[in-house]
Amino acid sequence: MFRQVEEQLYTAVISDALDELGSRDQALREFLRPISGSERIVGWARTISCVDVYHIPENPYAMEIEAVDSILPGEVVVVSTAGSLQNAPWGELLSTAAQARGARGAVIDGLVRDVRKIQSIDFAVFARGIKPVDSKGRGTIIDYNVPIDCAGVRISPGDLIVADYDGVIAVPAEVLPNLIQLALEKVRKEDGTRAELKNGAYLKDVYAKYGVL
Amino acid sequence: MFRQVEEQLYTAVISDALDELGSRDQALREFLRPISGSERIVGWARTISCVDVYHIPENPYAMEIEAVDSILPGEVVVVSTAGSLQNAPWGELLSTAAQARGARGAVIDGLVRDVRKIQSIDFAVFARGIKPVDSKGRGTIIDYNVPIDCAGVRISPGDLIVADYDGVIAVPAEVLPNLIQLALEKVRKEDGTRAELKNGAYLKDVYAKYGVL
Amino acid sequence: MFRQVEEQLYTAVISDALDELGSRDQALREFLRPISGSERIVGWARTISCVDVYHIPENPYAMEIEAVDSILPGEVVVVSTAGSLQNAPWGELLSTAAQARGARGAVIDGLVRDVRKIQSIDFAVFARGIKPVDSKGRGTIIDYNVPIDCAGVRISPGDLIVADYDGVIAVPAEVLPNLIQLALEKVRKEDGTRAELKNGAYLKDVYAKYGVL
Amino acid sequence: MFRQVEEQLYTAVISDALDELGSRDQALREFLRPISGSERIVGWARTISCVDVYHIPENPYAMEIEAVDSILPGEVVVVSTAGSLQNAPWGELLSTAAQARGARGAVIDGLVRDVRKIQSIDFAVFARGIKPVDSKGRGTIIDYNVPIDCAGVRISPGDLIVADYDGVIAVPAEVLPNLIQLALEKVRKEDGTRAELKNGAYLKDVYAKYGVL
Amino acid sequence: MFRQVEEQLYTAVISDALDELGSRDQALREFLRPISGSERIVGWARTISCVDVYHIPENPYAMEIEAVDSILPGEVVVVSTAGSLQNAPWGELLSTAAQARGARGAVIDGLVRDVRKIQSIDFAVFARGIKPVDSKGRGTIIDYNVPIDCAGVRISPGDLIVADYDGVIAVPAEVLPNLIQLALEKVRKEDGTRAELKNGAYLKDVYAKYGVL
Amino acid sequence: MFRQVEEQLYTAVISDALDELGSRDQALREFLRPISGSERIVGWARTISCVDVYHIPENPYAMEIEAVDSILPGEVVVVSTAGSLQNAPWGELLSTAAQARGARGAVIDGLVRDVRKIQSIDFAVFARGIKPVDSKGRGTIIDYNVPIDCAGVRISPGDLIVADYDGVIAVPAEVLPNLIQLALEKVRKEDGTRAELKNGAYLKDVYAKYGVL
Repeated sequence: MFRQVEEQLYTAVISDALDELGSRDQALREFLRPISGSERIVGWARTISCVDVYHIPENPYAMEIEAVDSILPGEVVVVSTAGSLQNAPWGELLSTAAQARGARGAVIDGLVRDVRKIQSIDFAVFARGIKPVDSKGRGTIIDYNVPIDCAGVRISPGDLIVADYDGVIAVPAEVLPNLIQLALEKVRKEDGTRAELKNGAYLKDVYAKYGVL
Repeated sequence: MFRQVEEQLYTAVISDALDELGSRDQALREFLRPISGSERIVGWARTISCVDVYHIPENPYAMEIEAVDSILPGEVVVVSTAGSLQNAPWGELLSTAAQARGARGAVIDGLVRDVRKIQSIDFAVFARGIKPVDSKGRGTIIDYNVPIDCAGVRISPGDLIVADYDGVIAVPAEVLPNLIQLALEKVRKEDGTRAELKNGAYLKDVYAKYGVL
Repeated sequence: MFRQVEEQLYTAVISDALDELGSRDQALREFLRPISGSERIVGWARTISCVDVYHIPENPYAMEIEAVDSILPGEVVVVSTAGSLQNAPWGELLSTAAQARGARGAVIDGLVRDVRKIQSIDFAVFARGIKPVDSKGRGTIIDYNVPIDCAGVRISPGDLIVADYDGVIAVPAEVLPNLIQLALEKVRKEDGTRAELKNGAYLKDVYAKYGVL
Repeated sequence: MFRQVEEQLYTAVISDALDELGSRDQALREFLRPISGSERIVGWARTISCVDVYHIPENPYAMEIEAVDSILPGEVVVVSTAGSLQNAPWGELLSTAAQARGARGAVIDGLVRDVRKIQSIDFAVFARGIKPVDSKGRGTIIDYNVPIDCAGVRISPGDLIVADYDGVIAVPAEVLPNLIQLALEKVRKEDGTRAELKNGAYLKDVYAKYGVL
Repeated sequence: MFRQVEEQLYTAVISDALDELGSRDQALREFLRPISGSERIVGWARTISCVDVYHIPENPYAMEIEAVDSILPGEVVVVSTAGSLQNAPWGELLSTAAQARGARGAVIDGLVRDVRKIQSIDFAVFARGIKPVDSKGRGTIIDYNVPIDCAGVRISPGDLIVADYDGVIAVPAEVLPNLIQLALEKVRKEDGTRAELKNGAYLKDVYAKYGVL
Repeated sequence: MFRQVEEQLYTAVISDALDELGSRDQALREFLRPISGSERIVGWARTISCVDVYHIPENPYAMEIEAVDSILPGEVVVVSTAGSLQNAPWGELLSTAAQARGARGAVIDGLVRDVRKIQSIDFAVFARGIKPVDSKGRGTIIDYNVPIDCAGVRISPGDLIVADYDGVIAVPAEVLPNLIQLALEKVRKEDGTRAELKNGAYLKDVYAKYGVL
């Protein structure tokens, strides 16, 4: 299934299929944008919960190291920060480490740094923004592999993350088979609609024929 | 006039001319940015009013289809959403349909999707942001060809929309002739100012000579 | 020192060194982004304080002209606006004038215009956003060479401004010598960390060895 | 059931019971505050959807009049506005009309006016804020008795609205019987906890005994 | 006229009359709330422009003292701050001084302090909020008796300010005579509407008769 | 010292004295308002760090119970939440427990619930707002007796918290003796200034005499 999503689908059509299945709140907020890397990433969510702090805890990086070292091939790192704008919990060295473990990318509901270097290793990162500050004394990882809120969507370990230029979608694993079928049908109808519109047909007629917009 | 604006003017100098004519609030808010397409668009406003909904109305796309099918060549689609961040009322298929009708671009005070595909057909779109969600059950068109508020500016059908990398300006049709003359004079003075500054002249002297900044 | 910063350092590592020296709030807010120009700028802050107005004062550009004409080579113009979104206090002509005086770039905590033209003369500008409006009747310079707040950081004349794709840092002049030494050490440790991570080492082991992240 | 909620329960304990039943997002956002009237209101939701407009439509009040005239005794008017801050869709005359129909109060996700007069007739209103502007040319009712979003919560016709000084809760009708039982048990445990804490017992011991906080 | 407004009118009905006269943007934003003093104030605007600073200027209070000492009886002090949340430009001593000069109140588009003391002298103040900080080194008065923007409305010296629990309205002096007549008519129609609604009449019939809502 | 602050000083004059001592950022943001209790509270900060969660952790209240049970007489509970609007980490039972331990009040940079009941036991609470939701599954205490950020101010255990109707001030313990002396002098000058202004003196003369405003 994984490959089928990657090769034939995209976030917009997946969102439409999720709508039809009754999961209407799976698209992350618009402020998460691609900062680095390839056009489309697909992978299983590896969730990490980061929170703001205002002093340097005893082992500031302990759980962060544990979380990143345990990443499995085919995963996408998903980090929540409660929308922190004081901390940049992701950067080049974590990207390098995650890439070495097989991660397909990272979705950070917060800020990142070292962006030119992350781009140079072609590691896909979606984030809220960019700031050159370290996390030491600004944020700490309190848990991983737990449900988190990332840019307005509840994401659980094992959800399928699909991200492209239009944004990021979290697909609950259990709806995946139905979703793929619905989405492929939608792709076909959109192809027909597009072709007729390009030939100058009116929306009214094309919509009557294909039923999609 | 239309062509003269397109070839010789740009939003900054049009804004200055509007200032001189006493229309000081015609530049749309800074959060509308070019998402796709050519460097400059000029066209008559075709306004569409979209509002958030939380259920799927009976004919969800009825008025949207009517509005888009009636677009005339030389128009720019302008969509208000009251700043909705839950709905993406514009995408590839509507871009294709609008382009087929002769629209010169779209200015969406809201979110859009299918951005890579819109870019591939080179249709100009200015918007608040990007999110991969459909409008069905999220927004509905309640009216078109009525005054709307788009990114902080009241826009009426028939205003001239000028948009480039610096932003979007709405020019009330009645001031257009005076505006073009003032703007062309301003362009000439800016050219003189620029040339002298490049040669190392001080602002004080150049401003005394040309009176523009 | 100036050249050493420019050639060997970057904002992320400078921020880390400032952290170690106890100056933890020197990185400007994430909403300042590069709008034009070269990848990295370094220069002494020339501060300018701009405030919103709602009428055209007597000599609207008087102090602005004075401030820009007095720029010295090697300076970076830093403009505060209290976060104004109604005024674009910087544009092409001021960029041209500042460049002619030897300025290395401009950091505007507000909006700018004429962006394509500023890009064409390759003058570095960091700003909050873009809007095609003039400052006349929207903002006025009330002072320069005074402490200002720029994107959340108190900046004084003579601070060293370093800006690259990761953001903007203000370095108080007095900490500069210590900072450079600390930052160069950090660069070396990061190089070692990166190399081992690329070879597949675990973060746990690499962090134990180099102590940086 | 209606009366039992009114006399023995309150929003905080209802929220806790909804949590236990898995409905964790039923409390409206904190910006809705009591503006007028009695300490607690309970009633069935009569939903009204209001949207911003920028011109005066043909029959500006037509659907509003229809919606208010059809209010039934025991209902609470719930108005969505997509968070409009330009329009005050509720005021004294509508309060008087709704009160005459038997409404128990109004929850307005927007602004209201005539507040001193609404207070003088003791009609309960919860709202975002206060502004003395009419809705004509600023907002229009597009539908009623449909699902709406009010201060972050999806509310459907027939949900039970409970509001007091702590805020507003929407209870889906189908969970009401279970909810009341759970909530009454929680009240009892809170009473025990409170009594022991007042006597100086430690939280640790009291929580071990009653299991609530 | 002054007295007629004070005794027979209120902000809501004045706003409606301004709407009819085509001045639809004269109500200040909803975040200005009464902080102290009597239920209704009416007076001519004495405008003061305050801006944020980040150091202590030479004579920090010079223009503030001049502005306050020149207040005339029957005026309302109106202070703009560009929405500053770092500075509280108004407090007890200025209230006492303004009251001694005959001011009827103050409308501060910003923060105030000494609120309990201002309440104890019964001086009417409308403001954004409360914070116990002095203006020295945080804000400075750059001008007075000039047009300013206060909570979203352009206010010029000599506009009539009317403020009550529903908010603040700025009435341009030239429309005042027409406005009073229209507003008094509206009051009469509202009185009729209210009386019939209280007797249980339906909105539909009452609106057909009086034409107001 | 404690008593002297409580009886003779108030937040505004303490803020001025801190300004003179160079601590200009000790006043908490304006959105913290008194929700319950007496006019003025003074006490040593007992800091608690609460963060958002999206699932129910194993012992959801464990550290919260420990933190509250360890409160000492004369302390003020200060809770940070990174500005959470999803969680209400403080309510009646914690107020009762804290009051039983001798706490003088609570300053919550977040939401609270059970407000009517907190008012009925006359426990002083300052907070951002009110929402009737429990913290279980919404927030968790990760630490206490550590430096936190509360409404924009870094607060450390042992800072003196002073709060009244004007807001909340955090006084670092080491500056307290100097502060009290400066503040008492300021009170005396304000008393003289006030008396003369009430007699109709001009600000110019009174400021020349007392030097305060």
